[in-house]
Amino acid sequence: MGLRDELIGIAQAGREAARKLASAGTAIKDSALRAMADAILQKQKEIQAANDQDVSAARKAGTTGALLDRLTLNEKRVSEMARDLREIAELPDPVGEVEHEIVRPNGLRVGRMRVPLGVIGMVYEARPNVTADAAGLCLKSGNAVILRGGKEAVESNRAIGQIIIQAIQAAGLPPACVQVVETTERQVVRELLTLEGQLDAVIPRGGREFLNWVASTATVPVIRHGDGNCHVYIDASADLDMAEAIAFNAKVQRPGVCNAAETLLVHAEIAPLVLPKLLASLDEAKVEIRGCKHTREIYPVAKKATEEDWATEFLDLILAVRVVENLDEALAHIARYGSGHSEAIVTSDYFRAERFLREVDAASVLVNASTRFVDGGQFGLGAEIGISTQKLHARGPMGLRELTCTKFIVRGQGQIRT
Amino acid sequence: MGLRDELIGIAQAGREAARKLASAGTAIKDSALRAMADAILQKQKEIQAANDQDVSAARKAGTTGALLDRLTLNEKRVSEMARDLREIAELPDPVGEVEHEIVRPNGLRVGRMRVPLGVIGMVYEARPNVTADAAGLCLKSGNAVILRGGKEAVESNRAIGQIIIQAIQAAGLPPACVQVVETTERQVVRELLTLEGQLDAVIPRGGREFLNWVASTATVPVIRHGDGNCHVYIDASADLDMAEAIAFNAKVQRPGVCNAAETLLVHAEIAPLVLPKLLASLDEAKVEIRGCKHTREIYPVAKKATEEDWATEFLDLILAVRVVENLDEALAHIARYGSGHSEAIVTSDYFRAERFLREVDAASVLVNASTRFVDGGQFGLGAEIGISTQKLHARGPMGLRELTCTKFIVRGQGQIRT
Repeated sequence: MGLRDELIGIAQAGREAARKLASAGTAIKDSALRAMADAILQKQKEIQAANDQDVSAARKAGTTGALLDRLTLNEKRVSEMARDLREIAELPDPVGEVEHEIVRPNGLRVGRMRVPLGVIGMVYEARPNVTADAAGLCLKSGNAVILRGGKEAVESNRAIGQIIIQAIQAAGLPPACVQVVETTERQVVRELLTLEGQLDAVIPRGGREFLNWVASTATVPVIRHGDGNCHVYIDASADLDMAEAIAFNAKVQRPGVCNAAETLLVHAEIAPLVLPKLLASLDEAKVEIRGCKHTREIYPVAKKATEEDWATEFLDLILAVRVVENLDEALAHIARYGSGHSEAIVTSDYFRAERFLREVDAASVLVNASTRFVDGGQFGLGAEIGISTQKLHARGPMGLRELTCTKFIVRGQGQIRT
Repeated sequence: MGLRDELIGIAQAGREAARKLASAGTAIKDSALRAMADAILQKQKEIQAANDQDVSAARKAGTTGALLDRLTLNEKRVSEMARDLREIAELPDPVGEVEHEIVRPNGLRVGRMRVPLGVIGMVYEARPNVTADAAGLCLKSGNAVILRGGKEAVESNRAIGQIIIQAIQAAGLPPACVQVVETTERQVVRELLTLEGQLDAVIPRGGREFLNWVASTATVPVIRHGDGNCHVYIDASADLDMAEAIAFNAKVQRPGVCNAAETLLVHAEIAPLVLPKLLASLDEAKVEIRGCKHTREIYPVAKKATEEDWATEFLDLILAVRVVENLDEALAHIARYGSGHSEAIVTSDYFRAERFLREVDAASVLVNASTRFVDGGQFGLGAEIGISTQKLHARGPMGLRELTCTKFIVRGQGQIRT
C-alpha cells in the first residue's frame, strides 16, 4: 500500500470518527479532555523520557537556542499541557450554537448554526505541547485531527499521542478522533496537503519558507499560522517606565516565540531619554542590539542594523532598534517590514493610540501592553491552535470557534418564493 | 507593458483606493451608493443598449436557455440593480465595529474590530447585475474591487462599470475603488489568481470545472461560490399541498440559478399520494422528469434517471426524482450527490425536522421552505456577492460581513507578561 493510500485510509478513519464526534454531547467530550489531562500527569515520566531522547538528538545535531527551547519539555511545561486541556474542558462548546437568528418579514426564521469543520490536518514543528493542545482543541470543537509534528519531536509526539488516544478511547470516543502520523518522510506533508475532499482544512505551523511552500502546494484549504516580525513603538508621549518595561518584556520574556518583539521603534524626541537605560538593561539580559545611525549616536555600543535586520524574525536575543521622526514614519516602517502578526504602541496620547489601533494592518494591535500577550490563553480563548496572520476565516490567535464553521438553518411554515 | 504588469498596476491602484476607502466614513460611502443607483436608473437606456448587443451576440453563438436568461437584462432587472444598491446603503456598515470585547483578569481589554479585507478580485460569468452588486457590496464594506466578468457580458459590464465609477468619483471617493478589466483574454484570469500579495481574496463564480481550475491555479486566497445540486425531500409526514407547492417552486420559479432544486426525493409511503399530481403539474410547466424505477411505476411518462442525473446541476427545466425508503436513505443520497449548497425537507415531524437540520452537511438547510430562498437578499444580508459552499471564512450567502475580517485590538495600562 502506497503512502497516499495509507493517508487516505487515515483521513477516512478520521471522517468516520468526526461523524461520531459531531453527535457526541459536550459532557462526553469534556470527560475525555479531563481524562487526557489526568493521563498526561500520570505518565509525566514517560513523556519526559521521550522528550529527553529528542532533546539530546537535537543537541547532537547542533540545534540553536530558540529551537531547542521550543522542543524542550520540563515538569512545568508538561503540567501546563494538562492544565490547558482542563481549561479547554471548562470552555463553552461552540458546536450547535445558533447565532444571529432573525425572523424575516415572510416568517422564515434564519439562523447560523456552528458546526465542526470535519477533519483537520495539523502540520507543525518542534514544539511538542502543540500535540496535546491541538488534540484538545480539535476534540472539543468536534473535529477529528491528523497530527504531523516535526521530526525533531518525533519521540515526544509519539508518547503524548499514545497517552491521549488511550484516554479518548477509555472515555468512550473513537480513538481515530486523534491520529499521529509517525513517519518522518517529508513526502507525507505534500500528500496531506493535497488530500482535497478528504481533509477540510490544514493548519501548518513553521517558518516563512515552509509556509510559502505550503501555500503553493496545498489544494486543501489552509489556515496559516504566520511568522511574527513584531514591533514595539515608543511614542513621544510614552510613560518612560512603562515603555521600558513593555519593550524589555516583549523582547526578553520568551524570545523564541512568534509574539516576541524583533524591532523597537522610538520617537526621536523621547529616544535620548528612554534608550540609554533600556538598551543597557537589554544588554545586561544578553540581547544583541542592532541600531540605526541615530540609535548608535545615542548608544554607541550597538551594532549597525542592516536592511535585512528590519525584515527578520530573529526568534532569539537580538533586537533591531530604529529612531523615527513621528508616528507616520513608525506606521510606514511597520507596513513595510511587519508580518501582520502583533504590533504595539506605548503612548499617553489618546488620538495616537486610536490611530495606531485603526491604521495598523495586523492580526493583533496593542496599546500599552506587551506583544507577548498575543496568545489564545491570554486572550481568553483557551489554549490556541496557532496564530493566523491571514485575513480569511481566522486572524490572530485561533481557539475553538476558529475550528468551526457555520451553516444557515431556515425554519419555514411552507413558504415559497414569488 | 505586459499583461501581468498591467494587472499589478490595477491592483496597486486598488490598494491605494482601498486605503482611502477604509478611512472614509459610512455617510460618504452611502451617498456614493445612492449616486450609483440614481445613475443606473438615469442611464437605463445606455445599459439596455449594451446588453442588447451582448444578448444578440450570445443568441448568434447558440447560447442555451439558462445562460441566456442570466445574461439578459430588462427594465425590471435594471431597476432591481438600483434597488439593491439602495438597500446596501441602508444596511449597517460593519467596518470599525468591535465584537466580543472582554476584559481579562489583568485588566486588558481584548476585542475584535471589523476591517475590510483590502483588494478583492471578482471573476464571474454571464450575469451582468453581478457587476453592480459586487461593486456596491465591496464599496460599502470598504474594499476596492477588480471586476472581471464573462466575455458574453462584456458590453453590459463596460456600460454598468463606467456609470458606477463616474458616480463614485462624483461622490468624492477614488474611482479606483471599482475597476473593470475589459480585455476578454482568458490569461487575465490566471494572472489575477496568482497576484499573491497584491489581492487579498478572489471570489470566483462559474461552473464546477471552472471553480476546480481556479482552486488548483490560485495562490491568492479564494472564496468559492459553489454550484448547487440541491434537493427537496418530501417526508412521509409532509402536508401534501405544502410539499407540492415547495417542490414546484424550487424547480420552476427560476430554474437557471444555483438555488433551484435539481433532484426530488420522496418517501415511499407518500410517493403514490404526492407524485401523480405534482409530476403532472411539473410536466405542464415543461419540466422534463427523470425518475427512478419506483417513480416510473407511479408515473410511467417519466424518463429513466441515470447515475449521472443524480450528480448533475441541470440549471434547466429538468428534474430527477427518486423514491426513498426512509429519512436515512434521503440523507445518504444527499451526502453522496449533493454539492453542499441548499437542501430542504418538507415534514410535519418534529424529530425528523431537527435531525435534517443537524445532520445535513450543507451551507443552507431548510425545513418547510423552498430552496429558492437561499439568497443574500432573502436572508436579510442585502444583495449577495455569491453563495459559498466552502467551509472556511464564509459559508452560504455572502453579504457585507463576509467581505470583512477582524483584527484583535488590545487596550492596556502598561501590562507585561510574567
